Amino acid sequence: MSKKQELGITVKKDENISEWYTQVVKKADLADYAPVKGCMIIRPYGMKIWERIKKKFNQMIENEVDNAYFPLLIPESYLEKEKDIVEGFNPEVAWVENAGKDGKLEERLAIRPTSESIIAEYMSKNIRSYRDLPFRINQWANIMRWEATDTRPFLRTREFLWQEGHTAHENKQKADEEVLKRLDQYGQLYEDIMAIPVLKGRKPEHDKFPGAAMTTTVECLMPDGKSIQGGTSHNLGTNFANAFEIEYEDEYQEKHLCHTASWGISTRAIGALILAHGDDKGLVLPPNISPLEVIIVPIFVGKDDEKVEKFSEKVKEKLNGFRTEIDYDREKSPGFKFNHWELRGVPIRIEIGPNEVKKKKLTVVRRDNGEKKTVKLGKIEDNVEDILEDIQYSLYKKLEDYREEHTSKAESFEEILENIDKKKGYVKSFWCGREECEEMVKEEVHAEIVLVPLKRENLEGEKCAVCGQTAKEIAYFAKNY
Amino acid sequence: MSKKQELGITVKKDENISEWYTQVVKKADLADYAPVKGCMIIRPYGMKIWERIKKKFNQMIENEVDNAYFPLLIPESYLEKEKDIVEGFNPEVAWVENAGKDGKLEERLAIRPTSESIIAEYMSKNIRSYRDLPFRINQWANIMRWEATDTRPFLRTREFLWQEGHTAHENKQKADEEVLKRLDQYGQLYEDIMAIPVLKGRKPEHDKFPGAAMTTTVECLMPDGKSIQGGTSHNLGTNFANAFEIEYEDEYQEKHLCHTASWGISTRAIGALILAHGDDKGLVLPPNISPLEVIIVPIFVGKDDEKVEKFSEKVKEKLNGFRTEIDYDREKSPGFKFNHWELRGVPIRIEIGPNEVKKKKLTVVRRDNGEKKTVKLGKIEDNVEDILEDIQYSLYKKLEDYREEHTSKAESFEEILENIDKKKGYVKSFWCGREECEEMVKEEVHAEIVLVPLKRENLEGEKCAVCGQTAKEIAYFAKNY
Repeated sequence: MSKKQELGITVKKDENISEWYTQVVKKADLADYAPVKGCMIIRPYGMKIWERIKKKFNQMIENEVDNAYFPLLIPESYLEKEKDIVEGFNPEVAWVENAGKDGKLEERLAIRPTSESIIAEYMSKNIRSYRDLPFRINQWANIMRWEATDTRPFLRTREFLWQEGHTAHENKQKADEEVLKRLDQYGQLYEDIMAIPVLKGRKPEHDKFPGAAMTTTVECLMPDGKSIQGGTSHNLGTNFANAFEIEYEDEYQEKHLCHTASWGISTRAIGALILAHGDDKGLVLPPNISPLEVIIVPIFVGKDDEKVEKFSEKVKEKLNGFRTEIDYDREKSPGFKFNHWELRGVPIRIEIGPNEVKKKKLTVVRRDNGEKKTVKLGKIEDNVEDILEDIQYSLYKKLEDYREEHTSKAESFEEILENIDKKKGYVKSFWCGREECEEMVKEEVHAEIVLVPLKRENLEGEKCAVCGQTAKEIAYFAKNY
Repeated sequence: MSKKQELGITVKKDENISEWYTQVVKKADLADYAPVKGCMIIRPYGMKIWERIKKKFNQMIENEVDNAYFPLLIPESYLEKEKDIVEGFNPEVAWVENAGKDGKLEERLAIRPTSESIIAEYMSKNIRSYRDLPFRINQWANIMRWEATDTRPFLRTREFLWQEGHTAHENKQKADEEVLKRLDQYGQLYEDIMAIPVLKGRKPEHDKFPGAAMTTTVECLMPDGKSIQGGTSHNLGTNFANAFEIEYEDEYQEKHLCHTASWGISTRAIGALILAHGDDKGLVLPPNISPLEVIIVPIFVGKDDEKVEKFSEKVKEKLNGFRTEIDYDREKSPGFKFNHWELRGVPIRIEIGPNEVKKKKLTVVRRDNGEKKTVKLGKIEDNVEDILEDIQYSLYKKLEDYREEHTSKAESFEEILENIDKKKGYVKSFWCGREECEEMVKEEVHAEIVLVPLKRENLEGEKCAVCGQTAKEIAYFAKNY
């Protein structure tokens, strides 16, 4: 018996989603707590999901963006060069002040909370001419932000893994194009791969990334009515170019500051994935992101076991276009194994016992809705393909419907509060653009403005739902993770 | 014009290998210095090589070993649990003592210098029965060791990237088997992929990894006669099992301590790769590790340029089984481009000008020996395959011959010194096993015992070449990196 008990999830998702989440993370072998508070161990199953996210996103960007690796430690003076970065991140930095035989260091070093400053210097060294633009570089790395608030595996941790892309461009327009292109790719990653619909938008001015001229976000509405920021893409204007002298010469040998951008997604995406699709039995993974698409469970009854195993291998061979494994364990009961793979969210389970061998038919079970059907051996490939496609689509559709049902409009402060409370999800209303009005909502119902639409619409004559002043934006209020 | 000047290497490898190395690292876009002394920026081309090492090694272990991710920060008390680890690593640790709004932390945290302690605790939680053994886990991560001595990109840096595998076993024998299996895989990685012959051996008792019962190593002899430790694999005995209570129950419900092992290779391998094969024109990469196997350089002369480009694409299509790219740049001269790709060590260059198009013949140039030949379009695929194979083999053979020529025997202290000085490479001699005798050699000629053979031979009647006492080992003395 292993120390990790194979118990199922003991709470219902819609009764206590917080406890449900914690149990899924632990029992599906996704992550474990670390000795340092707020940090986590990403266990092999969680890591496999992250590796797939990485692979899929690398495929999207690899023709245009080079991967590199920048140092973990950043001198304090580098952070200080850009005033918003220092103000934004200093409260969350873990500092190295003593190291090795050097003892006390001359300058304290930050464990990177983000790498704009160190990459800005690299850009400054490597960009000279307009021919060097656009300049694009990306790294997959660990990041440290010493959060003061409560942490939770994947969703909010002091150390996390992420991808951070950094680019430099000739002008604002080109930087904007880059920002939106990467935002679209994050949307694709969430929608096509993770089956999570997103809303794309801007963050309000007061909620931008430190040092950014514009922050854009993909927001995913979870089935409990709360929004998750799934990835962000920032136009940094000339702020970093100014601080680190990132300049290029145009065709006429005139010098200009570059416009830079940065964009990132993190292991937080795994948190979104768990919350988005999981059910009372545990994790539910969309086929496109699942480490395994099909698990074959041979049912050993002590009779015809060899035949059952051989037949299982034949089925696996037929399914060699899919990520398939056989659970060979002869000591655990079929029921135990069913639970095991359900807990881990594998999209399709194929059960093979002596009966299936005799009839050359297979029992195929869908993880998402529990549907069972019998499929002839000769038709298994087509069937699996169809079912996987249908699971991928159904998971997406369910969340899309949910979001549609849970997006409402509000015309007054009271209506915003009431909708957040009763209708849940996103509450749209006109907004004057002032943080005070958001604060009033936040104080009452803990909802924030998670985004405003990418394009500013003509709001002539409209008034802020909170204060009645001239409206400047359409705000999406929501509770969030 | 880009700020990164495309100048060739200005020193000869055998005249000043140290300066040569620095120039290759910078000019072939492999790495750059970071603001924090001893740290490095791994540039895209260096990162591509690391990604290939990663891919190849992952393929070797993936059927048996799971990848995971463990936290960067380790509490001091964890390091202190195993006394050799704390003694061995504390002088090299970078400490976090202040973080975020918490300010001063209750316990200082080490940036991982290695992860045995934190993974030992994970093993202790996850291993209960003999059925859980062997237990194997691996991570690809960044590591920090605050070296006091001079640092050099890849070869010795305060931060580096590595892979660390950690395993637990029932007894010493099984742990030993694991240690040797991984050592063999490192050997394979160096020999078959990187074309660098290795010697496998043990480290002397006094030079073992902190906390290890046995440290094994793959040693690579560089063309300057110095050895590089290419990777290590340790049997940790029951030291960590004892300190962290890693126990299992056998079939009869009796409890035993596990025997653990750990094994790692790092970005240092890239340093070995540069030194091993590079020449006066820059990097020379063995085909199996090179990000590109073939670079096609169309020669644009302002006449028939479109035909040249089209023909180049046809050639690329024919070579779609190989990692091939076309250098489309029309602004840079052919000579500039030749230098560019030679500097970066691409194994084969194919030149295509109007003449080649007319005759349907290609000019094929080998990077390793500069050989040029003309190949008919119809035969290009077979030719490329043969040449790549031959390059891979020749690079290996050259180093193997070098090592054979530079391995000598010595029967006295004076002979050891003389051989190290004149014959270079490895000097084998009988050794009593005492550190003092090694120290005497070290003081005179800066050579160390880089390994002793894996199997202890019967040395009855033999005497230590240094002190004349009874010999216990055959020592390989060499200067090393």
